[in-house]
Amino acid sequence: MADTSAYVPPVDDYAFLFAEAFGEDVVARATGGALSAEDAVDALAAAGELASEVLAPLNMSGDREGVTVIDGQAKTPAGFPEAYRAVVEAGWITAEAPESAGGDGLPALVQAGLGEMWNAANTSFALCSALTTGAIHALDAYASDELREQYLTKLVSGEWTGTMNLTEPQAGTDLGAIRTMATPNDDGTWSLKGQKIFITWGDHDVADNIVHLVLARTPDAPAGAKGISLFVAPKFLPDASGAPGERNAITTVSVEHKLGIHGSPTCVLDYDGATGFLVGELHGGLAGMFVMMNSARVGMGLQATGISDRAYQRSRAYAEERMQGSVLDRPDGTPIAEHPDVRRLLLSMSSEISAMRALGVYVGDLFDRAEDADGIRLAELFVPIFKGWTTEEALRITSDAIQVHGGMGFIEESGAPQHYRDARIMPIYEGTTAIQSNDLIGRKVIRDGGATVARVLDEVAEATAALEGLDHPVAARTAERLERARVAAEAATAQLIAFGMTRDAYAVSVPYLMLLGFVAGGLMHARMLAATLAHETQTDADARRIRDADAYGAHHLSRVAGLADVVAAGEIG
Amino acid sequence: MADTSAYVPPVDDYAFLFAEAFGEDVVARATGGALSAEDAVDALAAAGELASEVLAPLNMSGDREGVTVIDGQAKTPAGFPEAYRAVVEAGWITAEAPESAGGDGLPALVQAGLGEMWNAANTSFALCSALTTGAIHALDAYASDELREQYLTKLVSGEWTGTMNLTEPQAGTDLGAIRTMATPNDDGTWSLKGQKIFITWGDHDVADNIVHLVLARTPDAPAGAKGISLFVAPKFLPDASGAPGERNAITTVSVEHKLGIHGSPTCVLDYDGATGFLVGELHGGLAGMFVMMNSARVGMGLQATGISDRAYQRSRAYAEERMQGSVLDRPDGTPIAEHPDVRRLLLSMSSEISAMRALGVYVGDLFDRAEDADGIRLAELFVPIFKGWTTEEALRITSDAIQVHGGMGFIEESGAPQHYRDARIMPIYEGTTAIQSNDLIGRKVIRDGGATVARVLDEVAEATAALEGLDHPVAARTAERLERARVAAEAATAQLIAFGMTRDAYAVSVPYLMLLGFVAGGLMHARMLAATLAHETQTDADARRIRDADAYGAHHLSRVAGLADVVAAGEIG
Repeated sequence: MADTSAYVPPVDDYAFLFAEAFGEDVVARATGGALSAEDAVDALAAAGELASEVLAPLNMSGDREGVTVIDGQAKTPAGFPEAYRAVVEAGWITAEAPESAGGDGLPALVQAGLGEMWNAANTSFALCSALTTGAIHALDAYASDELREQYLTKLVSGEWTGTMNLTEPQAGTDLGAIRTMATPNDDGTWSLKGQKIFITWGDHDVADNIVHLVLARTPDAPAGAKGISLFVAPKFLPDASGAPGERNAITTVSVEHKLGIHGSPTCVLDYDGATGFLVGELHGGLAGMFVMMNSARVGMGLQATGISDRAYQRSRAYAEERMQGSVLDRPDGTPIAEHPDVRRLLLSMSSEISAMRALGVYVGDLFDRAEDADGIRLAELFVPIFKGWTTEEALRITSDAIQVHGGMGFIEESGAPQHYRDARIMPIYEGTTAIQSNDLIGRKVIRDGGATVARVLDEVAEATAALEGLDHPVAARTAERLERARVAAEAATAQLIAFGMTRDAYAVSVPYLMLLGFVAGGLMHARMLAATLAHETQTDADARRIRDADAYGAHHLSRVAGLADVVAAGEIG
Repeated sequence: MADTSAYVPPVDDYAFLFAEAFGEDVVARATGGALSAEDAVDALAAAGELASEVLAPLNMSGDREGVTVIDGQAKTPAGFPEAYRAVVEAGWITAEAPESAGGDGLPALVQAGLGEMWNAANTSFALCSALTTGAIHALDAYASDELREQYLTKLVSGEWTGTMNLTEPQAGTDLGAIRTMATPNDDGTWSLKGQKIFITWGDHDVADNIVHLVLARTPDAPAGAKGISLFVAPKFLPDASGAPGERNAITTVSVEHKLGIHGSPTCVLDYDGATGFLVGELHGGLAGMFVMMNSARVGMGLQATGISDRAYQRSRAYAEERMQGSVLDRPDGTPIAEHPDVRRLLLSMSSEISAMRALGVYVGDLFDRAEDADGIRLAELFVPIFKGWTTEEALRITSDAIQVHGGMGFIEESGAPQHYRDARIMPIYEGTTAIQSNDLIGRKVIRDGGATVARVLDEVAEATAALEGLDHPVAARTAERLERARVAAEAATAQLIAFGMTRDAYAVSVPYLMLLGFVAGGLMHARMLAATLAHETQTDADARRIRDADAYGAHHLSRVAGLADVVAAGEIG
């Protein structure tokens, strides 16, 4: 069997996105000239080397070995602790942390590239840093100077890792139902008691300490979401020197037996009078969590892009080596990559992945540029779209990657099943697709009467007009397809607003989210296509981009009208 | 956690399909009155009891335990041998075998119900009998009296099981590349040498002997598919009394480490001079395999229906018990089944499963009634559509079943992941979806200029007209949606025929197959809806059928137009 496990970081694609696709050097724009596209590409090249040489080789072995709990201590797969040290020593944790927290504050659009690569190389492993980054954002926003000094600095340096302790058996999507109790101690600390489940990287052996951010209820707190507070509770309480000291009363009960991401320790944690420290205002816990939600959800979109690309790379490598049968014009046996249907699958995948990747940069750029309420609204509109659309579509892409392999795709040794299994959690965690779509229609579409969506559709119309001015058949086809999609999106948005905040709207919010995702992908291809066709002579990469735009239009924009029909139907009586 | 593993056989649905949905008692029609719908329902009820009480409880344990090979002998999961004996003793193997082979020859449309139930209860287990049935068909068509006496009788009684040995490492989809050699012995037998992979139930411990049907090449045979012959090679050579005697030179090298169907032994078999017996004509091996292909492929559609329904039943049971959050009109906490998006998912699933189930009966009925070349052509048109469409859609349905569970759906103990993993092989084995679609467009659409498809679309037009005559909003909506789908199907068919046998056609053959699948599902709902609305007073089951028809139109017929756009695009340059 061909070795299809190599990971090739898409550095060239990011170079194109940073320097050309959006009409200017967007890295320079985001950093006021402090960094250029070239600098960012250098950073991605270095990260890509680490990702492909250190992290990617541990992906399948981590899946097979999984996580074990020995004497109440979670043990990660072989190689993970060393790999974590390599990431820390190369400075990547610090690079992604905001300057206000003592990090390098790389712009979000550069972090898009990093996020994709870490996740493509090894999703289970990448989750550790993703959770740490979330904890950094929450502490940076709300923690007292003392907590910043004790915990935030250690997270930013990568010495310690972070977690989010939200879910309980009866409180999943509905965090208002949380029962973990925090009772005040005489010394100003709190005593935490309760059980938390689904805690990603909740225990491990890759760093010296773990900083848990814990949602809990306090005595006499108001019922529901308004009575939730946020606490820090470390695995080991810092001693006088700040080093990990006494073990806190937090027990790792078990790790979950999951469909995928076997290398990531998903823990059940029992808090039995654990010492905690209040972060921010009493009863302000959910606000503390929401502060990290944008970046965490955007991170999920990057994870979806990464897993999708790894699955695609693997299936393309297999298809280029696997000889089987004959096609019409190659009767003597051909690599299956040249069979028309395998080629269709590969083009369907690659064209969607390139749209996802561009959208990650685009959304990062919106956040980097957001200066006023309008800019923030536009950036935030895309968070649920990017998270929901990419994670749902990653299911199909990782499934197609199996299909390309034929029977071999069902065999674990081929590597294809792992991506399919790993991807399945993405439309669930960090808010299910339904949660994303409720956020989208409630807070971001119906509330402003569709004004922000209209801005995006105006940009689609501009991009379409730009393509119409080009003398190229793919530009003409793409413009025509995008215009039809835009019209359908306009109608669906009007329909949704007409529904208002009713069951009809919530019953079709996911199809509506997906519709906007496909349109956003089309906008990305329109921008990339225009930039590509501006080249005087065309390279292989240019030819690939033109083909991807065409394939995206044929295979994905074609799905928009049907989704608009679903929206029009509302809830089925 | 709620126990969601119970399986409720859909006997009532089959009662409706047999007696009402198609306007008359189709069982009586298929059997010339020998059996009635009521008789068939009694049979399904008995089978359903065995399926739910004996087979279903072994589904998850079989997945966990998997298959091991000890001293060259495959060992199936605990309970499988006893369950197999129960199936044999109840007479189900014999019931499904054709009368010409000594079986009871239940009509295909009744076997549709059986096939769905066996697979819903325990797909891994059900594969054993499915393969035996295939072997029975092949031997019944081609074997000499001596081979019939020695092997066919034992298969029909269920004493022994059968397998198909087709695939080799270099010969998957392309069977012409087979290298296993059969050299003639002096006594008229053959000596088989080579390695076969992906052999479903290739070795096990549930019955006394295994009858392998093996494709092999003979010395001096023509190259490619025309040089392949079919042989019988038993695990144990029968002794003078016909009982299993000397072990044949067939070694179980290993069982595959698969994504799913862990309870089904997928074997690598090594033939090292094994004794084989020629079946049918020398070099006529592929014809021998093709004879069982229709029933095997229809069987895959039933498997897809069964797995989909089991996943649906599980997720619905979970959603009805899981309390979480509040919805607009139920602020005090509600079962998630009443959340608008969960309800959307459940309706999307149930409406498609009911279409699949009806299509299984419809296709069985076409085969039961096929009397001339025209009838056979019509029946055979549906084979790739039913196999391809249902197995592809089962991926989405089993994925939706996970989504309904939220985070719990990613945990293996919930049972939801198993269906997702098990289902993933279905669009691959018995011919990938690309193979189905090539068969569809090549042999069944382009060859007759679309005449057979046109007959189906005429039936769609008739069913639409019948709905238009009914005074009911769902009938009106369904008619309108079905008419749009029919027009799109007509255009796509014309486009395909215009492409001819070119890369453009093969590059969009899968989308075209899916399009016809959705239209066929719409036809089923139109027929069921008309039969339901004919009732004077409406039961809960009637209300469910009306709702399913509406949901199918909104969520699935809406996909047809986009697929027609994909077909129109042809191959991406």
